[in-house]
Amino acid sequence: MADTNLQKLSSNKTFNGELIKYKFKSAALGGLDAQFNLYLPPQSTVVKVPLLVYLSGLTCTEDNGAQKGGFFEAASKQGVAILFPDTSPRGAGIPGEDDDWDFGTGAGFYLNATNPKYSKHYNMLTHVTIELPQIMEAAGLPIDFKRQSIFGHSMGGHGALTLYLASATQQYKSASAFSPISNPMKCPWGEKAFKGYLQGGIEEAKLRYDATELIARRKDPVHILIDYGTGDNFYIQGQLLPENFLNAARGAGHDESHVRVRRHEGYDHSYYFISTFASDHVLYHAGFLKI
Amino acid sequence: MADTNLQKLSSNKTFNGELIKYKFKSAALGGLDAQFNLYLPPQSTVVKVPLLVYLSGLTCTEDNGAQKGGFFEAASKQGVAILFPDTSPRGAGIPGEDDDWDFGTGAGFYLNATNPKYSKHYNMLTHVTIELPQIMEAAGLPIDFKRQSIFGHSMGGHGALTLYLASATQQYKSASAFSPISNPMKCPWGEKAFKGYLQGGIEEAKLRYDATELIARRKDPVHILIDYGTGDNFYIQGQLLPENFLNAARGAGHDESHVRVRRHEGYDHSYYFISTFASDHVLYHAGFLKI
Repeated sequence: MADTNLQKLSSNKTFNGELIKYKFKSAALGGLDAQFNLYLPPQSTVVKVPLLVYLSGLTCTEDNGAQKGGFFEAASKQGVAILFPDTSPRGAGIPGEDDDWDFGTGAGFYLNATNPKYSKHYNMLTHVTIELPQIMEAAGLPIDFKRQSIFGHSMGGHGALTLYLASATQQYKSASAFSPISNPMKCPWGEKAFKGYLQGGIEEAKLRYDATELIARRKDPVHILIDYGTGDNFYIQGQLLPENFLNAARGAGHDESHVRVRRHEGYDHSYYFISTFASDHVLYHAGFLKI
Repeated sequence: MADTNLQKLSSNKTFNGELIKYKFKSAALGGLDAQFNLYLPPQSTVVKVPLLVYLSGLTCTEDNGAQKGGFFEAASKQGVAILFPDTSPRGAGIPGEDDDWDFGTGAGFYLNATNPKYSKHYNMLTHVTIELPQIMEAAGLPIDFKRQSIFGHSMGGHGALTLYLASATQQYKSASAFSPISNPMKCPWGEKAFKGYLQGGIEEAKLRYDATELIARRKDPVHILIDYGTGDNFYIQGQLLPENFLNAARGAGHDESHVRVRRHEGYDHSYYFISTFASDHVLYHAGFLKI
């Protein structure tokens, strides 16, 4: 049983629900210890609740979104659980993985590595989409895994959009992102990650890890919300490229009712931006999750 | 002019207002650099707004409440500025000040030290009540200093209650606290602080730095709200003693409409607890500040 492996590290009551930190040995991450936070809203003591997955950005852990996101008031009211995975394997011991803040530890990019140097450990795609739901289900946690949505920030926004768009099983009902890396094969962060983690580099990434490429090929209806700020230095530097995603979406026939991209004057890349629109995002997903 | 000394370090837009971090050379803290955060709500671009002072707890800086408190949505709606001072002087160089997490650096206890070893630098009372308002006023910040209230967490709850109750000028219209150290002369944290910072030790503290002693002697009406959780380890260990404060308040004739102490089942000492009741506290103060 997978649940025998799940260890509860701490629990904090918040907005009448519980935020619980867990640890387990992750097969997807090559047997390393992995941690995650799970918010269970008060309704979960009575019924199984839907799950919203929050993917954090570069340098983050499972704690940043939980501590600074401001998601729990809306999640408590709406009866939605929120899962906060980590952003990479920890302690793989691969030479150089701790050298840069935008590659390796803290920068898993929510893909499965095919470069043999990283492929044993850097499999955050499988970790998030398959392993964590299995572990939680085996442990009997009160979640209805048929109702999942996904959102994230920056690298985690890239993760949310690509995991949503590339899912063969339509695992997620909706996706949203704060300041996402929207066209990673055309920005320095994405190029570095894809060339490092993927044997096929950019060409391999193009098929499943670039949100702009994926939306351009997608024809059936989607449910996507994106927020970004004009005062975001990474937006200004061309790391995020949300206009590319928007143009590709409109070009593929996805209108405002299916792909909404909102530009906010003066907001930056920080959690002060995220928390401002946190309730908006939870409510957006609740609309799809509570059906 | 005091304002020539004020340096803006950063600014983040949040909930349509601005959170600004400042630095200046603090006379009250013996000439050391001091930092604070100030949230200016959107209304402050048009009118002067009232000020709510948030005092943080042991080991914290000016950032904890700003990043994790969840105060800005309500502050933005209500048009209230929030000031986040630091919790102690930084880098005074006094032997031993960095040895313990509950004394010295990060643990200023919002008093003016009289022990000569600390009295040049450890004057957080003057820093919070006099120096910071003067600095902000001299800089022309859009705040109406005639309308101030104060709140805080743990050591900062002690600070909020004592600065409110001991103010000769009735500087603050209302006070509130999350998990405050309510009777510090009777708990290990307070005893250690008072014996260290004050030449007269506990006896000196009794006159102006113990909220329970102060409320017992106070006869005219007060406006105080306190929240604490039954799952709070420091409450269980007897560091907080909110019942002592409540009993002293009732004994002095302050009823539920003037001193309200709420006990919350299962909540702990963390910001997950604070954020749950953050809007309640901002709204409580807004009721007095917006008159």
